[in-house]
Amino acid sequence: MSTQRFITENFLLSTKSAEKLYFDYAKNEPIIDYHCHLSPREIAEDRQFENMTQIWLGGDHYKWRAMRAAGVDEFYITGQASDWEKFERWAEIAPLTIRNPLFHWTMLELDRPFGINDRYFNKDTAKSVWDECNSKLATPEFSARGIMRQMNVETVCTTDDPADTLEWHKKLAEEFKSGVFGIRVLPTFRPDAVFPRFCTSYEGVVAYLQYLTKLSAAADVDISNLGSLRAAFAKRHSYFHEVGARLSDCGFELFEWEPSTETAAEKAFAKILSGLKISKEETVAISSVLLSDLGRLNSERGWASQLHIGAMRNNSSRVYQKIGPDAGCDSMVDGSYGKALSRYFDDLDKVGRLPKTVVYNLNPSANYLLASLIANFNDGSYPGKMQYGSGWWFLDQKNGIEEQLETLSNMGLLSLFVGMLTDSRSFLSYTRHDYFRRILCNLLGKEMESGLLPNDFEWIGGIVRRICYGNAKEYFQF
Amino acid sequence: MSTQRFITENFLLSTKSAEKLYFDYAKNEPIIDYHCHLSPREIAEDRQFENMTQIWLGGDHYKWRAMRAAGVDEFYITGQASDWEKFERWAEIAPLTIRNPLFHWTMLELDRPFGINDRYFNKDTAKSVWDECNSKLATPEFSARGIMRQMNVETVCTTDDPADTLEWHKKLAEEFKSGVFGIRVLPTFRPDAVFPRFCTSYEGVVAYLQYLTKLSAAADVDISNLGSLRAAFAKRHSYFHEVGARLSDCGFELFEWEPSTETAAEKAFAKILSGLKISKEETVAISSVLLSDLGRLNSERGWASQLHIGAMRNNSSRVYQKIGPDAGCDSMVDGSYGKALSRYFDDLDKVGRLPKTVVYNLNPSANYLLASLIANFNDGSYPGKMQYGSGWWFLDQKNGIEEQLETLSNMGLLSLFVGMLTDSRSFLSYTRHDYFRRILCNLLGKEMESGLLPNDFEWIGGIVRRICYGNAKEYFQF
Amino acid sequence: MSTQRFITENFLLSTKSAEKLYFDYAKNEPIIDYHCHLSPREIAEDRQFENMTQIWLGGDHYKWRAMRAAGVDEFYITGQASDWEKFERWAEIAPLTIRNPLFHWTMLELDRPFGINDRYFNKDTAKSVWDECNSKLATPEFSARGIMRQMNVETVCTTDDPADTLEWHKKLAEEFKSGVFGIRVLPTFRPDAVFPRFCTSYEGVVAYLQYLTKLSAAADVDISNLGSLRAAFAKRHSYFHEVGARLSDCGFELFEWEPSTETAAEKAFAKILSGLKISKEETVAISSVLLSDLGRLNSERGWASQLHIGAMRNNSSRVYQKIGPDAGCDSMVDGSYGKALSRYFDDLDKVGRLPKTVVYNLNPSANYLLASLIANFNDGSYPGKMQYGSGWWFLDQKNGIEEQLETLSNMGLLSLFVGMLTDSRSFLSYTRHDYFRRILCNLLGKEMESGLLPNDFEWIGGIVRRICYGNAKEYFQF
Repeated sequence: MSTQRFITENFLLSTKSAEKLYFDYAKNEPIIDYHCHLSPREIAEDRQFENMTQIWLGGDHYKWRAMRAAGVDEFYITGQASDWEKFERWAEIAPLTIRNPLFHWTMLELDRPFGINDRYFNKDTAKSVWDECNSKLATPEFSARGIMRQMNVETVCTTDDPADTLEWHKKLAEEFKSGVFGIRVLPTFRPDAVFPRFCTSYEGVVAYLQYLTKLSAAADVDISNLGSLRAAFAKRHSYFHEVGARLSDCGFELFEWEPSTETAAEKAFAKILSGLKISKEETVAISSVLLSDLGRLNSERGWASQLHIGAMRNNSSRVYQKIGPDAGCDSMVDGSYGKALSRYFDDLDKVGRLPKTVVYNLNPSANYLLASLIANFNDGSYPGKMQYGSGWWFLDQKNGIEEQLETLSNMGLLSLFVGMLTDSRSFLSYTRHDYFRRILCNLLGKEMESGLLPNDFEWIGGIVRRICYGNAKEYFQF
Repeated sequence: MSTQRFITENFLLSTKSAEKLYFDYAKNEPIIDYHCHLSPREIAEDRQFENMTQIWLGGDHYKWRAMRAAGVDEFYITGQASDWEKFERWAEIAPLTIRNPLFHWTMLELDRPFGINDRYFNKDTAKSVWDECNSKLATPEFSARGIMRQMNVETVCTTDDPADTLEWHKKLAEEFKSGVFGIRVLPTFRPDAVFPRFCTSYEGVVAYLQYLTKLSAAADVDISNLGSLRAAFAKRHSYFHEVGARLSDCGFELFEWEPSTETAAEKAFAKILSGLKISKEETVAISSVLLSDLGRLNSERGWASQLHIGAMRNNSSRVYQKIGPDAGCDSMVDGSYGKALSRYFDDLDKVGRLPKTVVYNLNPSANYLLASLIANFNDGSYPGKMQYGSGWWFLDQKNGIEEQLETLSNMGLLSLFVGMLTDSRSFLSYTRHDYFRRILCNLLGKEMESGLLPNDFEWIGGIVRRICYGNAKEYFQF
Repeated sequence: MSTQRFITENFLLSTKSAEKLYFDYAKNEPIIDYHCHLSPREIAEDRQFENMTQIWLGGDHYKWRAMRAAGVDEFYITGQASDWEKFERWAEIAPLTIRNPLFHWTMLELDRPFGINDRYFNKDTAKSVWDECNSKLATPEFSARGIMRQMNVETVCTTDDPADTLEWHKKLAEEFKSGVFGIRVLPTFRPDAVFPRFCTSYEGVVAYLQYLTKLSAAADVDISNLGSLRAAFAKRHSYFHEVGARLSDCGFELFEWEPSTETAAEKAFAKILSGLKISKEETVAISSVLLSDLGRLNSERGWASQLHIGAMRNNSSRVYQKIGPDAGCDSMVDGSYGKALSRYFDDLDKVGRLPKTVVYNLNPSANYLLASLIANFNDGSYPGKMQYGSGWWFLDQKNGIEEQLETLSNMGLLSLFVGMLTDSRSFLSYTRHDYFRRILCNLLGKEMESGLLPNDFEWIGGIVRRICYGNAKEYFQF
């Protein structure tokens, strides 16, 4: 199965116009990766990875999922097998991943940064890929920072808990200021743990109270009622701002929010503090107050809110108990949330406190709903204020990206789109920006040639360039 | 950015077969615009528009929405700015609308009726477009009727409240009969205001009672209980029939209907008459009775029912208070309604009183559900009795039209489709019929050439012609 | 309208690579039709059909639906008209079915097995088609078995009630063992009637109790409480296993399942036995217990579960009373079921009793939800354990098949897909396998030529071959 080059210069570019858009307007733009799950510590310490399994398979639940589907035993996925054995199993099943995004991602990631594009990845080539990549990983060009530099990254926003000290971020900020490290790395305020989502069970309350202790310490606030929780929340938001954060992020199954829940929230929160579990409605009462606070704080400080809507997590209790969260047993929710989301936005909007907002959708059946809903709240204050975010998770593949572009185009203004992000835990995911850019250029190039778009490269190419870089740069104002 | 012609003769027609279908079978068919929101008064008075802002931007919430998204201040959208200033702002942001339907619509509307196709619309060309169009608007060919004649319109159905006197319609009917004006303009019975949807709030009750006073006067019926409301409702239906109406129309968030609600409805209606607000369930009880009445009345008079399902309106309370409804802050609902709709149809069908029905869907995730559901109630009485209507509102764009055609084709019989409508408030929207026809011909032409459809122009072209005109002509029997 | 050949050798194959994939890897693979609704009796008796109406229109609610939509009176569909009259009406409206799957199916079925591909089917050709086909139907090559042999069928799984004696299946098994009949015909355990779905009404209870009498007799178990119902259920499962069944199948509106419902189920079942109707929740309590039993039994015997989710049946009470179920008045449900399904799988998985499972989805808005959800439960035990089944019913058409392949590819591993089935009541539906294969090869061939897939026929062709035959062979282990 070894082969001619698969990732060619023109990969995904099916017309001359697409090529021109890509090469002249997209390819060389820097990367602003405004949402990811990289470890700031690994960047600060400039981690050097020992081998491909550590950088490529460790934590990659997409691959784990594929391996399980292909009948690979857990021992070789997250178990005690050696790194080489895990790598070998992955190589064996890789040829089965055709048409899954893993196939293109794999070929793209071997091509860049590793320069391997003369063979397919499979059991026959596993050893050679292992050896070549591992020897490169031992060089400075392939440290965490080395890879980021190779990939032309300008800014990265990680995802951080409000109780986090942000010590690594502070170190990175100093190095950025002093010119030691030229890539800006910023924290994102992700307060999911502050929402008492799991306090419907006793175990959930116990875990939540432990978290409150951490938050209390971080904020230096005695959390004895809802008011002090909100004060601690606000104080951490302020601290994140000082360290450079300009984004918040929250994850939801269905988005839930109720107006005017303060009294109910106070009572419910008092229950938790007494160690009692609360009802689903009570968790929503508390979360609603915090979500409104978050909206106001973001608005006042010029941050952008991110909302990730639609994940149903940890579906296999067996795997959750064995491995924990983010183990590849997550999927999508069905159900309604349009009204709750609309009311949340409206509640902030009517007092002039709706921040810039980026929403991400997981169940594609809500694509049009969500993209049309957010556009109700563009208020002329800021170009592209309400953003329909890039294809997320299961939708971060060619088809999903095309659907996101199609939905956004029809429901809003593609021209003002802030573009791609990796949402990844891996330093090897930056080629997804390239993947996105090629798909974008292919789409527009084809339409230029078929008369659906103006055959004007200054115009369309300018828009491509802004989607790849300029819009995000202006929008987030890092 | 000025350019070669963008709207060419072959715009959207990507194959020779598509061209042949369009030019030989589609292009010259007259327009039956069986659902729109034009003002019958403006047609009756043959309004001459002062300038492009009045005819092109006034009331066009699609453009308002795009302008807000692009960061334009409300002052220049619906505010006190001059008509020229508003036009200029629209021109400035127009190039950002590529891939949104506004871009094609804008180019199509300048091409026809204004004959402007040598330049793109943007800030550089704004003045020349303004001047040329305004001088044309001053001529008789560009009055309301003049434009309709230019666009080869044969019949238009407006959207009218049951309390409306239909005075302008009666004038138009006389002029049609006497040959003074050759285009048939008919009213449509749109009883949304009779449904006590907003009577869950005190303000809603007050407004509803005011409306009942109007309806009572129009029907010359003292509305003192549910029975007399229904009598007034039926009387207005009869009156609309006399003035030429052959269609009703209702709009819904989720479609709601419950069987056998008369007693509950009577009680609930009595509450309203005493000035009390009622529950959500009580509003549905009343609406259900009226919807069943409407179905029977339509069936008995050979009318077609239209149901528009899925809009979530007036999401921004700030904008609603400032500007009112239809201001560009509407989107889609999620949630279930399949069973309610099926039961409503069944309830009428089992007593032989299900009228011809056209359903329109807003949230595309319900496309297949709705198109398959209605087909359960085709009863052999009339070809194409249950119609899956053309792409509506947010779906009235190339992708949405193609999806509607795809859904209808797979779930039913495309051949019997009654085709396109504008649903528009503007006299400049007739090019949407042309847009639709090109998309239809492009789709079929491509499949003729790839062997998916018979390469038989008599057959396929005949179907095209019927979808553009003949099916609607036969179906609605105006 | 007579014509050059429509079903050509290259029908649907738009590239050279697609042709090569089809002719070299797909075309000649045998058919494993692992889910259908053929009558085992008709196979056992080797039914010879008198005419085309009997084999082609009898029971074909797809065609009935189209005829009703086209305005054909029920008399000519399911009524007292002669077979020829029915056939003639179908021929008259057949040209209106373009773009509906019926059009391609009709042409494919006339082409194979009847060899008619020199004319379109319409009123002008009706008589010649009738005569030619009927004379062929009188020959041994066109008996039930004759057609199956012509179509290269290897295995067929019918759909059978637990109370069924399986007498025809036993006869067929003997003939298969002795070599008299070379096609394996196996039963499938379809216990829908055991679920007390309709016991919310008095009539439902009466019918259910009648069914229990049958089941009791078949199992030789006195069903006097929930425990004995479950014993009878298990006994029939065992009996089906002996006769060769390796699959179960259940149909659902929304999938409903609740954990730990045994006590509630016992009480509810006791109510039914006393002739009382029960609540919706109580029906779910009983069904949940039986579904869990079914999962365990399947897992223990190595069977695969099939779940058909999303049909809303018998929407027209008029037609249901006149004709009964499966009369062409079925469509899709909306609503949520993701959590219930996830919990059902999890409940079995955590005790190691989750069987191989194939899910089929009817409302396409749940495609991604369902395909991503099942993949949470791949456990490495079996390649492709959790299968996202082929496009079902309304989705069993070109667009639906392509969407299923796209969804599966992105959410899982296409390479391990067990492929197509007919789900049909007709011996003429085997061309749907060919239809599927052409669509599959066309999709992959196009992507090989555009650089999205490796241009490697051994690799991609091998996957095609397995999807057409090998995967099902290995997966079901008949």
